[in-house]
Amino acid sequence: MSNTFGKLFCITTFGESHGPAIGCVIDGCPAGLLLADEDIQQELNKRKPGQSSFTTQRKESDIVQILSGVFNGKTTGAPITLVIQNTDQKSKDYDYLQHVFRPGHGDYTYHKKYGWRDHRGGGRASARETAARVGAGAVAKKFLKTKGIEIGAYLAKMGNIEIEPQFFSWEEVNKNPFFCPDPTKVPQMAKLIEITRREGDSIGAKVNIIANNVPAGLGEPLYDKLDADLAKALMSINAVKGVEIGDGFKVVEQRGSTHRDEITPTGFLGNKSGGILAGISTGQPILASIALKPASSIRIPAKSIDDEGNAVEVVTKGRHDVCVGIRAVPVASAMMACVLMDHWLIVYGQKDS
Amino acid sequence: MSNTFGKLFCITTFGESHGPAIGCVIDGCPAGLLLADEDIQQELNKRKPGQSSFTTQRKESDIVQILSGVFNGKTTGAPITLVIQNTDQKSKDYDYLQHVFRPGHGDYTYHKKYGWRDHRGGGRASARETAARVGAGAVAKKFLKTKGIEIGAYLAKMGNIEIEPQFFSWEEVNKNPFFCPDPTKVPQMAKLIEITRREGDSIGAKVNIIANNVPAGLGEPLYDKLDADLAKALMSINAVKGVEIGDGFKVVEQRGSTHRDEITPTGFLGNKSGGILAGISTGQPILASIALKPASSIRIPAKSIDDEGNAVEVVTKGRHDVCVGIRAVPVASAMMACVLMDHWLIVYGQKDS
Amino acid sequence: MSNTFGKLFCITTFGESHGPAIGCVIDGCPAGLLLADEDIQQELNKRKPGQSSFTTQRKESDIVQILSGVFNGKTTGAPITLVIQNTDQKSKDYDYLQHVFRPGHGDYTYHKKYGWRDHRGGGRASARETAARVGAGAVAKKFLKTKGIEIGAYLAKMGNIEIEPQFFSWEEVNKNPFFCPDPTKVPQMAKLIEITRREGDSIGAKVNIIANNVPAGLGEPLYDKLDADLAKALMSINAVKGVEIGDGFKVVEQRGSTHRDEITPTGFLGNKSGGILAGISTGQPILASIALKPASSIRIPAKSIDDEGNAVEVVTKGRHDVCVGIRAVPVASAMMACVLMDHWLIVYGQKDS
Amino acid sequence: MSNTFGKLFCITTFGESHGPAIGCVIDGCPAGLLLADEDIQQELNKRKPGQSSFTTQRKESDIVQILSGVFNGKTTGAPITLVIQNTDQKSKDYDYLQHVFRPGHGDYTYHKKYGWRDHRGGGRASARETAARVGAGAVAKKFLKTKGIEIGAYLAKMGNIEIEPQFFSWEEVNKNPFFCPDPTKVPQMAKLIEITRREGDSIGAKVNIIANNVPAGLGEPLYDKLDADLAKALMSINAVKGVEIGDGFKVVEQRGSTHRDEITPTGFLGNKSGGILAGISTGQPILASIALKPASSIRIPAKSIDDEGNAVEVVTKGRHDVCVGIRAVPVASAMMACVLMDHWLIVYGQKDS
Repeated sequence: MSNTFGKLFCITTFGESHGPAIGCVIDGCPAGLLLADEDIQQELNKRKPGQSSFTTQRKESDIVQILSGVFNGKTTGAPITLVIQNTDQKSKDYDYLQHVFRPGHGDYTYHKKYGWRDHRGGGRASARETAARVGAGAVAKKFLKTKGIEIGAYLAKMGNIEIEPQFFSWEEVNKNPFFCPDPTKVPQMAKLIEITRREGDSIGAKVNIIANNVPAGLGEPLYDKLDADLAKALMSINAVKGVEIGDGFKVVEQRGSTHRDEITPTGFLGNKSGGILAGISTGQPILASIALKPASSIRIPAKSIDDEGNAVEVVTKGRHDVCVGIRAVPVASAMMACVLMDHWLIVYGQKDS
Repeated sequence: MSNTFGKLFCITTFGESHGPAIGCVIDGCPAGLLLADEDIQQELNKRKPGQSSFTTQRKESDIVQILSGVFNGKTTGAPITLVIQNTDQKSKDYDYLQHVFRPGHGDYTYHKKYGWRDHRGGGRASARETAARVGAGAVAKKFLKTKGIEIGAYLAKMGNIEIEPQFFSWEEVNKNPFFCPDPTKVPQMAKLIEITRREGDSIGAKVNIIANNVPAGLGEPLYDKLDADLAKALMSINAVKGVEIGDGFKVVEQRGSTHRDEITPTGFLGNKSGGILAGISTGQPILASIALKPASSIRIPAKSIDDEGNAVEVVTKGRHDVCVGIRAVPVASAMMACVLMDHWLIVYGQKDS
Repeated sequence: MSNTFGKLFCITTFGESHGPAIGCVIDGCPAGLLLADEDIQQELNKRKPGQSSFTTQRKESDIVQILSGVFNGKTTGAPITLVIQNTDQKSKDYDYLQHVFRPGHGDYTYHKKYGWRDHRGGGRASARETAARVGAGAVAKKFLKTKGIEIGAYLAKMGNIEIEPQFFSWEEVNKNPFFCPDPTKVPQMAKLIEITRREGDSIGAKVNIIANNVPAGLGEPLYDKLDADLAKALMSINAVKGVEIGDGFKVVEQRGSTHRDEITPTGFLGNKSGGILAGISTGQPILASIALKPASSIRIPAKSIDDEGNAVEVVTKGRHDVCVGIRAVPVASAMMACVLMDHWLIVYGQKDS
Repeated sequence: MSNTFGKLFCITTFGESHGPAIGCVIDGCPAGLLLADEDIQQELNKRKPGQSSFTTQRKESDIVQILSGVFNGKTTGAPITLVIQNTDQKSKDYDYLQHVFRPGHGDYTYHKKYGWRDHRGGGRASARETAARVGAGAVAKKFLKTKGIEIGAYLAKMGNIEIEPQFFSWEEVNKNPFFCPDPTKVPQMAKLIEITRREGDSIGAKVNIIANNVPAGLGEPLYDKLDADLAKALMSINAVKGVEIGDGFKVVEQRGSTHRDEITPTGFLGNKSGGILAGISTGQPILASIALKPASSIRIPAKSIDDEGNAVEVVTKGRHDVCVGIRAVPVASAMMACVLMDHWLIVYGQKDS
């Protein structure tokens, strides 16, 4: 496995969905940063299950404990360890999965790769691991904020409900359970969730991520380009099947004369590039989008096989998200934060932090 | 800069568009692989400029020399160095760019990051660097072929010409100058290139990449997932603004009941996942797509600034591709080959190679 | 900081001497290895303080908990997390050090690097961290044992007491509190410790580390040579100031005709190389030695300064080891185990494990 | 193989002793550094064979060409490629080695690891590769000099001739063919070389390396400690069997009260630590020593086997160094320069460069 991410700001996550705890070790955070449990907890709360009727009803309290690296309220330069106890495991719910592969899950591939697997709640493949990412992202966000950099994400599409708000406000995003910037779409989304849940099905989503005030010059060509590192970070999130920077797949039909963002003495005339040219930040907002598949943990029966190759029918029990894209919103911004922090340290070093 | 890619199969590329040469050092190729100049040359020829009237008229012969790592026709385990001399530089063509930033290029960001830049032909940011990637990919392809793995790519869309061939054949792909699997679309593409060129403009494209016979079990969760590493590799290619695995952004509107690929004793019933579940290969074909922007090097004038911040008008001279997506086809399959080879070595080690 | 070690077998350690806990995340251990708390505990017990009257009287129980990566008694391929609670901190003992730098310690350099420091018990610089290394090494040893590889270490010299046993036995090594292979030297060593302690002083030591049954072919020239990686791993242990492979510094006075180990059809005629030629294992035992400095935490007063640059006199209170080399013995063999496991995975991959 | 060294200042070397060329790609050098061929050539000349009657008579001109990364006399931030053509190969000299393993060489281990080998002149295992290290080190030295840091090395012992000059001067070191700081020892060394050569034998050596004006605070605990990284870098040099920092193995017999370097308001009272405490530089000179074995390429016959396991007698022909420690002097300082530069970039970033 490869559970470490980042070159100078390194996060190593651990823990299974139904083990005693999950967590992460954050290595490379400069010394002297004010950091409290609350800084991390408030980000974790955004991702926490059971927050509304629209997400999974698993009731994890997701209380974070800082186990190392912070002394008298400030980081020391030593690795910061976050631990979150698992409290609401219902492992029995997963007994039927011990020898059966759920289609669309890691069950089959983990079995093929490792020879066997921790089948309880998806084990290490569970999206529960993303809580650790959110914790690490919270530290990165706290640091980057001292440099003026702010990172956020929102739901841009759920099923066929496209969200293109006339007036964008982060306040609105953080106020409704869908991280939706357009209040007029909230009732439609609630309805879509309800219908889909009743049908025992799930639905895909698109999430947009934005970073403001990123200085020009971050990103290491040619292989650690800022957009390449973002692509990896975002694609590594559970259920993500696509990543776009700036105009993304829309560029296929564009002409060069319309795509290129012209420059004037007072700045760029557009941001179709998503704030990145030739792998290096331009100083404009960084814009990325991701596509999240509809989760396969649904009540509608599916054809599958067991670990001896026999045909079986699988119905996913347990408590699951109808749209995993919703809770992926804080995860996506956390991953962008980790990438930006890593690149910030490469350019500016520990000393300027 | 970060000019090295891969963990166990490491490629390090070097050279500028108008320097004496470009090349790469390939580290980690197991010993004992039969490898000749021709293995690499035939891949390079696919990307070579001046091959048809539809790509740039720069006339690079792109002759590769193996400088190390091969002895008596076989790899020794030592680093394999490939060098390609630059022969058709017309650096004078770029004099006007010394103090001016072309919109949509790395000119501005390189200046911001490094304080100055090699302005001749885009310097290190030039897509000429991708020849080195193709060379490295040729070595990976040669090795993977001994394991039965075959990798290819084709043009899937140019502007609004969507290519969805009824009968897919690699023979067709490699027979026309567009790497287009559908011969009926070739005349339309030729026409689109001509019109766009006459208008002094450029056009975007979409490329699909496929790997067949990849065994189940490649990919390291959680951060070096196979799809995450592919996303990084593909996004690091010049002009790429989006990466999809399997159904990609189509998943946003899908339901779980239709997205998940059901499994039967004789195999999967679909491949919407693109051959990757939970970051690990399923044994099905690996499917990826990329979006390439229309290049900004066009004759239509654009607003820009010089390095003192004054407003200027830029017209790009030189010999450029109307659709950079065409020559990106062999580059994309090369990058997939490098990623798969890296993961192959992680799972099977040097010894089984 | 850089708290991760290894390429494919990656250990990330965390925690401060006087924080709530220390521990490590072990990433890359193949799935299917039988692993129990006891496997780790028995190694930890060798390093545990308070085991005899010859080491520090700090009374840490050093009970390890496996927090992740093991399910039903076997590794799953997921990261294995070990946590050891700190139970016998007497942080008050260190209050006097908050603004004072102990000579020969990291106090001064941590202050210079990070701007401030966790002064309690040496914080992250404390040798307490090495318990986490021993834990990681225990996992590597368990795995390597399944391949026939056995790793051990012993005290080779303390002060001027040289230990060159006529008959070497690991049983003897593990039976006395000095890890001394020569029972006739144990009383001398006990006496030296007593005298040195009474004088309020400390004493240096040399430790030898041996790995048997390592197959030929481990080690990656040119920069990740097996000896180079061992040198880094061993030099990273607290108090180590020198590393030797095979004959080490004795080679300076040797001739080529005596140094080179001749080869016969039945094997090598000597092992002055320490089992490594050109960075690659020969199949003979791997032999390394390290020099450990006498700790600076002693009762004899020393000149120093405080963090405002004023002259002060420092007397180290607290409970300290007279010879840190003794408890470094299991740490040294743990680090060799981690290096060998890493190289084993590079050569043989996950699949052959 | 692993032919890349460094985290932010990355060097990748390539080439075999009897291939067309050797060289390296230097990645991570900040933009804007004045750099000319001469900067590198003058360092290469120190290591070049055939410089005096006391080293190998192979006559390589070792002319370096900068192939990329420098434009108009300044670095651009792009990878800097150095190429040195091989001109004086006498590969025929090595025909007798195709199936025979020289004792004390990599012949046997390369064969075991890779299944076969480039036997001409040692192939990749040849010390000729160290020319590439010297080239990379020259770039690091040029950069570090702009920060006031100066690095040098000298011969400290050859056989039993210990060199402890009363007055140390770099001028003296660079004026005699032994890099010997004590002119009174030069005749003895010349005589030892002559006698040893006549006997067809070789002799070991010790080299000391010093860096002055290194700021306090370089080094990343716990695993990338400055001394740990130096140990790896130095141990990776051909023929090195031991590495010491500061007092090295002398610490075994020392007491804490004498070892610790006391501190006063005007500085440290000693430098037994070698300028590194807890893995971090103290601001004092960095002191390291290495032991180099007597080369095994000698005329005195030795027992060995061929690749079918038959007993053979080996006599090494070709032109070889009697004391490889002499030409290792510039290699050792080059490796220290690379390590210090890497750590400099980690602490201060690209921007302050």
